[in-house]
Amino acid sequence: MTILAIDCMGGDHGTQVTLPACRQFLKQHDDASLLLVGQPEALAGFAHPRARVVPASEIVSMDDPVEVALRRKKDSSMRVAIEQVKGGQADVALSAGNTGALMAIARYVLKTAEGIDRPAIAYPMPNSKGGATTMLDLGANVDCTAEHLLQFAVLGSALVSALNGKPDPLVGLLNIGEEAIKGSEEIKRAGELLRQAAQTGVINFYGNVEGNDTFKGTTDIVVCDGFVGNVALKTTEGLASMIAGFLREEFSRNLLTKLAALAAMPVLGALKKRIDPRRHNGAALLGLRGLVFKSHGGADEFAFCCAMTRAYDAARHGLLGRVQERITRAAPLLACAAPQPAVTTTN
Amino acid sequence: MTILAIDCMGGDHGTQVTLPACRQFLKQHDDASLLLVGQPEALAGFAHPRARVVPASEIVSMDDPVEVALRRKKDSSMRVAIEQVKGGQADVALSAGNTGALMAIARYVLKTAEGIDRPAIAYPMPNSKGGATTMLDLGANVDCTAEHLLQFAVLGSALVSALNGKPDPLVGLLNIGEEAIKGSEEIKRAGELLRQAAQTGVINFYGNVEGNDTFKGTTDIVVCDGFVGNVALKTTEGLASMIAGFLREEFSRNLLTKLAALAAMPVLGALKKRIDPRRHNGAALLGLRGLVFKSHGGADEFAFCCAMTRAYDAARHGLLGRVQERITRAAPLLACAAPQPAVTTTN
Repeated sequence: MTILAIDCMGGDHGTQVTLPACRQFLKQHDDASLLLVGQPEALAGFAHPRARVVPASEIVSMDDPVEVALRRKKDSSMRVAIEQVKGGQADVALSAGNTGALMAIARYVLKTAEGIDRPAIAYPMPNSKGGATTMLDLGANVDCTAEHLLQFAVLGSALVSALNGKPDPLVGLLNIGEEAIKGSEEIKRAGELLRQAAQTGVINFYGNVEGNDTFKGTTDIVVCDGFVGNVALKTTEGLASMIAGFLREEFSRNLLTKLAALAAMPVLGALKKRIDPRRHNGAALLGLRGLVFKSHGGADEFAFCCAMTRAYDAARHGLLGRVQERITRAAPLLACAAPQPAVTTTN
Repeated sequence: MTILAIDCMGGDHGTQVTLPACRQFLKQHDDASLLLVGQPEALAGFAHPRARVVPASEIVSMDDPVEVALRRKKDSSMRVAIEQVKGGQADVALSAGNTGALMAIARYVLKTAEGIDRPAIAYPMPNSKGGATTMLDLGANVDCTAEHLLQFAVLGSALVSALNGKPDPLVGLLNIGEEAIKGSEEIKRAGELLRQAAQTGVINFYGNVEGNDTFKGTTDIVVCDGFVGNVALKTTEGLASMIAGFLREEFSRNLLTKLAALAAMPVLGALKKRIDPRRHNGAALLGLRGLVFKSHGGADEFAFCCAMTRAYDAARHGLLGRVQERITRAAPLLACAAPQPAVTTTN
């Protein structure tokens, strides 16, 4: 039995989305049970033999500053869900709440895994091969060192091997050219570290990839600084919504174009399905001593249920153990790759 | 009369594209004349009262390393075109050749403008307002300091005021959140510098923008590090070509979908026109003591002609003078913003 702790109050829609998604999820998965975390009065209507309410009196709102979420709302549904993982009552926690708060609370409650300096957020981006390319880090860390990028490669490899069943997923280093001499000094150093890691078999390194390779599906994993990753993700969202808006406008221009829309409907539906980000909902917070997943804040029932399934798959395929195992295998490299302490000058 | 020096041999298609584009351009612009730079035998067929051949015996290929282009091909069409600007025979040079080589040669031949540490590449990205958002830098500089980002803001403002007639175009700083406290230390410092510059009226600063704002058209200009800008540009290209590929596949799946494609053709054509990157072809190399534009390497006749028109507009609207004038106005800030020399410790 795999147990998920669900922050039922988080996200843009709260229980309106999370509860129907939980019901759907329980129907699809016989060997899963749920801890529904939130205000008991909001969850009272939900009855299922494999679900139990865990009360939490507060809610972290989408625009709560991290400090407020962390220090002033100690009985939030987000925090209590993560505490279920910490205490061993649940195998994984899932929230659609505020990403910054979720990462801060998860880090505070669960602590960072040994050998990892900074946890990272890994998103699956749909690719033209019909699957998804896992990108990390997507916003948790700015100013990453080469060592951090190596850690992300190790974490991402564990995630993809757990979720997609590929034992040695291919890792690409996001850069501005394929040649090893491209990029900043830090990126070049990261390339060297990743090549060393590949020689010892800890990861399967492809080399440098560029921004378009994510969508080509050149590698299973793309590793980057959180700043660059966040820009790439937002750029993707911006372009997709611009194209969708243009399509809507053009198809509703006049009677003829509306008829054309009717004719094209099945095709556009098939297209939408192929690039539907809801199917790939569920980002992993990696590098912690417990499993936490993050759903998109605006997720609907279908999208939230997809995120639940990803969290469930990660837990039942032993993601945490896989991460530990890869970190252990990578330990000699992570140790020798540890950032040198800054030279301190005494005047 | 505005004179353009055209590298007729550059790009994926060379004279097959550049010569027909030149012919089209001359038809559209009575007060422009062209210097056609390249191998005389390849240009012999082109006769026009406002065009003259300037011979150059060599060609920089798309995959020539920068060193080869710069040191071994001193009589390349790319270099000779830029030398026409240096010598005052032309107002602006345009090439569809290898970007790295073009920037290196332009920098070597023309030198960097006073007050500017590093030239930048500015690309117009189509936005949902029907216009374009100018992004810079897109790949010329990795590891930018706050001072470089301020310089890019000054350069970009001069470009957009020259091309779009907006006297005070709005500048956004690409970041991972709107709040001033977001981002790396360097980005936060850049925000402070840009706010100072806005107070003195040198630029019109909006504040932080995110990856999706480029397509929303929130600001006229988006300023970023060349690494981040290159990733954003390639991500855009990658997603656009994935969606285009999916559309083609879905519409050619069977007889019914092919009929739907016929019905939807005018709408898809209108959509394509709206996001057609060819319309916005023509990146500016800014911060040099002369004007150089870069066309996409794969440009067709229409796209190359658009790039010619941008180069022509920039020259006749006095872009070089506007850059100089803005740099002069910004000089007190650029001077006090000059990077502090690293503290040297004597042991």
